[in-house]
Amino acid sequence: MKQFNNPLPKEWADLSSRPTSSYEDIEPLVASVFEDIKTEGDNAIKMYTRKFDKVNLNQIQVSEKEIAFGVTNVSTELKSAIELAKSNIEKFHRAQKTDRISVETQDGVLCWQEKRPIQKVGLYIPGGSAPLFSTILMLAIPAKIAGCSEIVMCSPPDKSGNLPDVVLYTAHLCGVTKIFKVGGIQAIAGMSFGTESIPSVHKLFGPGNQYVTVAKQWATRYNVAIDMPAGPSELLVVADESANPSYVAADLLSQAEHGIDSQVILVTTTPSIIPAVQMEIEDQLAQLPRKSIVEKAIANSKVISFPTDDLAIEFINNYGPEHYIICMKNEDLYIDNIENAGSVFVGNYTPESAGDYASGTNHTLPTNGYAKQYSGVNLDSFFKQMTFQKITAKGIQNIGNAIQRMAEAEGLEAHRNAVTLRLNDLANE
Amino acid sequence: MKQFNNPLPKEWADLSSRPTSSYEDIEPLVASVFEDIKTEGDNAIKMYTRKFDKVNLNQIQVSEKEIAFGVTNVSTELKSAIELAKSNIEKFHRAQKTDRISVETQDGVLCWQEKRPIQKVGLYIPGGSAPLFSTILMLAIPAKIAGCSEIVMCSPPDKSGNLPDVVLYTAHLCGVTKIFKVGGIQAIAGMSFGTESIPSVHKLFGPGNQYVTVAKQWATRYNVAIDMPAGPSELLVVADESANPSYVAADLLSQAEHGIDSQVILVTTTPSIIPAVQMEIEDQLAQLPRKSIVEKAIANSKVISFPTDDLAIEFINNYGPEHYIICMKNEDLYIDNIENAGSVFVGNYTPESAGDYASGTNHTLPTNGYAKQYSGVNLDSFFKQMTFQKITAKGIQNIGNAIQRMAEAEGLEAHRNAVTLRLNDLANE
Repeated sequence: MKQFNNPLPKEWADLSSRPTSSYEDIEPLVASVFEDIKTEGDNAIKMYTRKFDKVNLNQIQVSEKEIAFGVTNVSTELKSAIELAKSNIEKFHRAQKTDRISVETQDGVLCWQEKRPIQKVGLYIPGGSAPLFSTILMLAIPAKIAGCSEIVMCSPPDKSGNLPDVVLYTAHLCGVTKIFKVGGIQAIAGMSFGTESIPSVHKLFGPGNQYVTVAKQWATRYNVAIDMPAGPSELLVVADESANPSYVAADLLSQAEHGIDSQVILVTTTPSIIPAVQMEIEDQLAQLPRKSIVEKAIANSKVISFPTDDLAIEFINNYGPEHYIICMKNEDLYIDNIENAGSVFVGNYTPESAGDYASGTNHTLPTNGYAKQYSGVNLDSFFKQMTFQKITAKGIQNIGNAIQRMAEAEGLEAHRNAVTLRLNDLANE
Repeated sequence: MKQFNNPLPKEWADLSSRPTSSYEDIEPLVASVFEDIKTEGDNAIKMYTRKFDKVNLNQIQVSEKEIAFGVTNVSTELKSAIELAKSNIEKFHRAQKTDRISVETQDGVLCWQEKRPIQKVGLYIPGGSAPLFSTILMLAIPAKIAGCSEIVMCSPPDKSGNLPDVVLYTAHLCGVTKIFKVGGIQAIAGMSFGTESIPSVHKLFGPGNQYVTVAKQWATRYNVAIDMPAGPSELLVVADESANPSYVAADLLSQAEHGIDSQVILVTTTPSIIPAVQMEIEDQLAQLPRKSIVEKAIANSKVISFPTDDLAIEFINNYGPEHYIICMKNEDLYIDNIENAGSVFVGNYTPESAGDYASGTNHTLPTNGYAKQYSGVNLDSFFKQMTFQKITAKGIQNIGNAIQRMAEAEGLEAHRNAVTLRLNDLANE
């Protein structure tokens, strides 16, 4: 890890910079895949699956039989672990349900706000080196609690044209309504336009590689919303002498394991802990199966020391980490003053892995500094808020004059007239 | 208005279609303005203001003196109307504040969710034929309640380089922190990158013409979020014989007044009311100052009759109107079953104008069918939701095994190890 001691504020932007994404290079490919799937539907999906996933599929939807088979193939131990995680995620997301908010703003003017589920949602689950079934829990559970009627899932097939058993088990357990063996740009395009097999959806969720990321952004041109823009995963740990160097090292390494572009930062007000953490990183790293990835990510990672809590907190808010672990004596100071972070982990027994899998919080979080303006996925991500109002005769008499005057000042006479007509009728009653 | 009786479901898509936006044509211009403002800052802002707004500005920020002058120039009557509206909008948006949500998902595993304000927001207020000060109320009031620390506003100057008095008054009243005489693409680019004068912001709000709309979409490439994609304003009225034809006509006309591309639809289960509404439209239209605009919008508008409530409701949900007025005997049926709408107005004394100005609800709403997946602007639009967790020794012992098993199944050994280390230490205590 590269070390920086009390860097000047003008150096912070550099220290906080993330790898820049090469949007423009990928867009022409994305645009042409979208065009083909818009016009050719399933045929184009199958063609691109042959091309990119090297597998020939007759049927892109996973059958009931395949699901049943997958479900029986998952070990009882893994099933129990997933069920425990599901129970915690459900508890935390169900608690996010809110009631209708109703206010009589003036006598006779009743305004209320209600949430209604987004009817059709699409979940993208990446494939690749490992089956990321935990992301299914994080997306399908709140979709189900919100009451989305169609929960479509796409994930790339392996070379023999299948999805991993545990992916099928988890999707089935969480109430996904349709599962497709489709990955990459073609999955995002399929769920955006709809094909003969894949339903079109109103909002797309889930992580992915750079092709999926650009495809999700592209989908917003076609009346589809997305959960958030994505980037490489990040962790910032702030620690002092109350931290356990071996735990800090393990947490930094677990983030570094995601990929060579993972962003790992240690901030400290106690530089004396740095050597012990560095030593622990070396020791633990040697034993990791994904050592070659982790080594590269750690080589690009940073240890930054600050002389005061204020400076440390200001830097952290400036960075806006996706994951933020606090191992400080004065932990409340660091909790109360955090303005920009995706998910916050407090204390020595709260590893990021807990939130990644099983504590109950969501792991689909804003990266790349987007914690400054985006929430992580939560129950509200699957709702729209709608407002309602009902005004009585008395009510329109109470606010009518104000509306008339404002409409007139904005030069909108028909807006004014809609009120004048009603007020005149009431005056003549 | 064009009339359609019980159209077949296969015809609905056509009846629901909105004018398609010509995104691609405008993008090259938007990209080049962004590039210039990124590199040249204020100088480029001033150059584009000369080019597009035909005015030469030395100073783009509105001064304290200009604000004070504007405030004194607004009539007492208009000030009272704006203050009444402000009070109602504040009541309704303040009621949307929520408490921290806290759940102990398992013994020793405490998870909570808190909202923190987006620190820097940018409000775009269109200029043009009339001063749209009502939009300032709708955006600055919730921003202030949420606690955003920097509320930047941009609006295009008139030919003499000023903003209307009532715009300055309203911005000042609502606590906007900095006001700029900058419009169009250059305003959006300025707030995205920041210039010598204009602060960069994290999220952009507000309506605008097609240039502003494309510029807001473009800004999302540069770590800026936007409230929602925009399109021409829309109204759908559903009415039966309990409706007052003159009020229905006035409401349809008030929507049509926004522009020739305004979308106006009347749905009815009682075709016998149609002639009376048509006649009222003709009568009222003749007296409107914006007659030429309204006529064109009304010529493109539609009256659609359905034989049953079920079909009417299904069509309305399929359309997803921005504004939705219900004047039906059985109004609850139409309230309870609406799945996709921006804002809903119930009963004969609830004109859309009420929500546009003064009842308390927000008027920044999803158009173009986006009610299927986007909320209108509300208090939460100015917050991020962040999650926190704190796990005790007992807690990690309760969920540790599940995490280890899931991390192993996903092939993430470092994630597993972060838990194993802690569990081993606790076992040895």
